[in-house]
Amino acid sequence: MKTRFYNARVLTMEPGRDIFMGEVWIEDEKILFAGTDEETQAFYQKHSGMILIWDQEIDCGGNLLMPGFKNAHTHSAMTLMRSMADDLPLSDWLNHQIFPVEAKMTAEDIYWLTKLAILEYLTSGITSIFDMYLTPLSIAQACLETGMRCVQVSAVNNFSQSPEMVEQMFLEINGKDPLNSYMIGFHAEYTCSKALLQKISALAHKYEVPVFTHISETAAETEGCRERYGMTPVAFLSSLGLFDFGGGGYHMVHCTAEDIAIMKEKKMYVVTNPGSNTKLASGIAPIAQYLKAGIPVAIGTDGPASNNCLDMFREMFLVTGLAKLKNQDASSVDAMEVLKMATVNGAHAMGLMQCDTLAEGKLADMIMLDLHQPNMQPLNNIAKNIVYSGSKQNVKMTMIHGVIRYMDGEFRIGVTPDAVYEKAEEIKARILQELSI
Amino acid sequence: MKTRFYNARVLTMEPGRDIFMGEVWIEDEKILFAGTDEETQAFYQKHSGMILIWDQEIDCGGNLLMPGFKNAHTHSAMTLMRSMADDLPLSDWLNHQIFPVEAKMTAEDIYWLTKLAILEYLTSGITSIFDMYLTPLSIAQACLETGMRCVQVSAVNNFSQSPEMVEQMFLEINGKDPLNSYMIGFHAEYTCSKALLQKISALAHKYEVPVFTHISETAAETEGCRERYGMTPVAFLSSLGLFDFGGGGYHMVHCTAEDIAIMKEKKMYVVTNPGSNTKLASGIAPIAQYLKAGIPVAIGTDGPASNNCLDMFREMFLVTGLAKLKNQDASSVDAMEVLKMATVNGAHAMGLMQCDTLAEGKLADMIMLDLHQPNMQPLNNIAKNIVYSGSKQNVKMTMIHGVIRYMDGEFRIGVTPDAVYEKAEEIKARILQELSI
Repeated sequence: MKTRFYNARVLTMEPGRDIFMGEVWIEDEKILFAGTDEETQAFYQKHSGMILIWDQEIDCGGNLLMPGFKNAHTHSAMTLMRSMADDLPLSDWLNHQIFPVEAKMTAEDIYWLTKLAILEYLTSGITSIFDMYLTPLSIAQACLETGMRCVQVSAVNNFSQSPEMVEQMFLEINGKDPLNSYMIGFHAEYTCSKALLQKISALAHKYEVPVFTHISETAAETEGCRERYGMTPVAFLSSLGLFDFGGGGYHMVHCTAEDIAIMKEKKMYVVTNPGSNTKLASGIAPIAQYLKAGIPVAIGTDGPASNNCLDMFREMFLVTGLAKLKNQDASSVDAMEVLKMATVNGAHAMGLMQCDTLAEGKLADMIMLDLHQPNMQPLNNIAKNIVYSGSKQNVKMTMIHGVIRYMDGEFRIGVTPDAVYEKAEEIKARILQELSI
Repeated sequence: MKTRFYNARVLTMEPGRDIFMGEVWIEDEKILFAGTDEETQAFYQKHSGMILIWDQEIDCGGNLLMPGFKNAHTHSAMTLMRSMADDLPLSDWLNHQIFPVEAKMTAEDIYWLTKLAILEYLTSGITSIFDMYLTPLSIAQACLETGMRCVQVSAVNNFSQSPEMVEQMFLEINGKDPLNSYMIGFHAEYTCSKALLQKISALAHKYEVPVFTHISETAAETEGCRERYGMTPVAFLSSLGLFDFGGGGYHMVHCTAEDIAIMKEKKMYVVTNPGSNTKLASGIAPIAQYLKAGIPVAIGTDGPASNNCLDMFREMFLVTGLAKLKNQDASSVDAMEVLKMATVNGAHAMGLMQCDTLAEGKLADMIMLDLHQPNMQPLNNIAKNIVYSGSKQNVKMTMIHGVIRYMDGEFRIGVTPDAVYEKAEEIKARILQELSI
C-alpha cells in the first residue's frame, strides 16, 4: 500500500529543518520519503529505474503534514468520570469521587471507555498515548482494534495490581502486536509502600528498563514524602534505584534544584500536564527551569476526569502560557520548543524512537492540519499559529502506523462513535446504580 | 420567516432554569418561544387559533441550543499581526512591533481584516463583539455585511482619534442599523493626557453614558499611574467622573481592594482577558474576588495579535483554571458562573440587554453545540463539559439576529473565506514592503 501526499506544507520536526512545500510518501506502515519539490525530482532521478504505483494520492491543498502528537500521560478510561466530580481538591476528588467509581469498573467497561477516549485523541491529532490504568489487556485490545498506538505503564500500588502482575503484563504485551507496548511503572510514592517500591526497582533492574510514575503533583504529596522519608519524592525514589535505567515523572510540579540535578543525572523525562494541574489547582511546573537544565519535557493531558478534555492544543498553549506567567516573562518557552515537546520528546519518553519525526524509514504516525481555517490566517508563522491559535478544529487527518484513522470528521476505527457513546452511558448508569448515587 | 428548532437540549441562561429537552422558535430576528416539550403543548393549547407555518424546521438531534458567546473585548483587525511578534513583553510588543504596522493600515485594510476575525468568531460561537480599533465606519461596514453584531468603543488616545471624532461616530453609528452600535471609551490612562480624559468625561456626562477602557493590564502601567497621579488607574479615572454613568475596564489584572470598592460603587463591569494576560505574562486577574464583591465579570479574547486566537472556549477554561491556580482552590469559579460571564454578563456590559438569554421576545443570537463529539461524552454535566472540555469543534451553528451565519463548517456571510484570506495576505505583503521588513 503506497500513499502519496502532495501539495503539502511539511514540518518533519527533524532538527534544523524548517517547514517546506513538498511531498510525503507512505509505504505500508512507514515513511518512504519526505522532501521538497526539488528533492522529489532528485529522488526520481536517483532511482531512475523505480516505478512508484500509488494506491492513493492525496492533494493536501497547502495544508500542513507533521508528526502526530504524543499524549505522554493519560488515564484513558476515566472518560467515564468526565465532569462527574469537578471543583474539588485532588485528595477529596481521588478518595471520595474517583476511587469508589473505579472500584466498580470491569475490564470490559475499561475496554469501551478507552475507545471513547481514542475517538477524542484522533480528533486532536494524537497518534500515541502513554496510558496508565487498571486492566492492561482490555486496554491493549481497544487500542489494537481501533489502531491507536499505546504504551501502557503499570499503575501498581498498595491497593491494586502487583509486581507479579506487572512482570506478567510486561512479558505478555511487549512484542505481541505492532501497536501496543508496556513499560514498568507504579502509581505514586504516596500510594506505594517502600517494600513495594523496592520490588518494582528490582524488576526495572532485572530487565534494565526505565520506570515512570506520578511525582510531586501537589505540594501536599511532596511534603508528605519529606515527612515519611526525609527526602523529596525524586530523591527518595531515585535512592531506591528506580531510575537507574532512566524513566521519568508525570506532573513534577513541585521539584527543587536538587531534584533537577538528580533528574539530569538519571536522564529522566518530565511529562507535564498543565491542564490538570490548573484545574486541580496543583500549581505551575517549572518548565523553563527544566529546559534550562537540559531535561527533556513531554506533554500529557492526564485523564479526562481531571482535565477534562484530551486536547493537545489546549495543553500546548498552557505549557508556554503558564511558563510565561510563572516567570513573568513573555519570551519564556517558545512555540517551536512546545511542538518538539508534543512530538519528538513525547515519542522518546515513551520509547517510540521510530515515531518522532517525518523521516524516511520512520513509522507513519502523521497528521494533517487545516491551514484554511480562519484561526490559522494569515500564515505569518505556522509554528506559532499551531501553538497559540490552533484547535482540534484544525485536525483534518490522523494517521497511525500508516493507516488513516480519522479524516474530515469521520472515524475509521471499526466502530461508530454513537455505539461507543451508548456503551459509556450504559456503564455509567450501571455503576451509579450499584453505588446508589 | 419562522424557524423551528426541535429535539434540542436548551440552556436559556435565564436565572434558575436548568437545561431541558424542548424547542426554540425564531420569528424574523426574535425568539418567539423557548420551552420544554410540555410547554410546547401548553403554548399550542393557549394559542388554539394560532397556525404556525414554518419556513424551516431543524432537527437538533439532541444537541444544545444556548445564547451565543459575547466577546466583550477585542481588536478584530489585529488578525494581521497574529503570530507576527510573539514572545515579547507588552511594552516592547506594542511600541516596536504593533504600532509601526498599525500606522500603515487603511480603513479598507481594517474592513478586510475585521472580516477575517468575523470568520473566526463564527467558528467559536461568538455572536457579538465589543471591538476597539481605528476606523469605526469600515468596521461597522464589515459587521453589517457579514451579519456580526458589533458594539464598538472608541480607541481615542494622544496619538489617534479625537473627542470630536468620538462624538461624531457616537451620533453616526448608533441607531443606523440593527447590528452596529458605538460606545464612548478611550485607549488607556497611560496613552491619554489628563486634558483628553476630561474631554471624554465631559462627553460621557453630556450623553449620560458608560465609558470603557483598558485598565490595570500590567503592573508597570498601574505603577506608572500611581507615579503620575498618586492614585491607581481605577481611582484616578473615576475621580475624573469617567464612570459616573457606569462602564468598566478591560483586563483589570492589578486592582486593589480600594479599586474594587470604587468599581462596586460605580457599577462597573470587569472584562477579563485571560488568554492575552497569560501570553503577555501580564498576570492573573482576581476574578474570584470580583465575584465575591458582586462585580459582574464578562470575558473577552483581546486582539489576535496578543492572544493569538479568538476562541471563547479557551478563554472560558482559562477564566476558571487561572482562578483555581491563583486561589490554590480547585472549587473557585464554577462552570455555570463562567457560562454566565460568557453570555449574560457580556451582553449586559455591551448594552445588549436583548441578547442575553433565550427568552421570548429577545433577539435571536443563538448557537448550537454538537454534543455528539467525543469531548462531550458522557453527558454527565453539560455545563461542565462546555467549560472544561468544549472546543470550537463543537460549534455546529451560529445564528445572529435570526440569521444562520455559520452551519456545519460553512459560512453564510456573502464572501468566501479564501477571498478574505487572500486579501489579508495582500495587505500583509504591502505593509511589510512599506516598512521594508
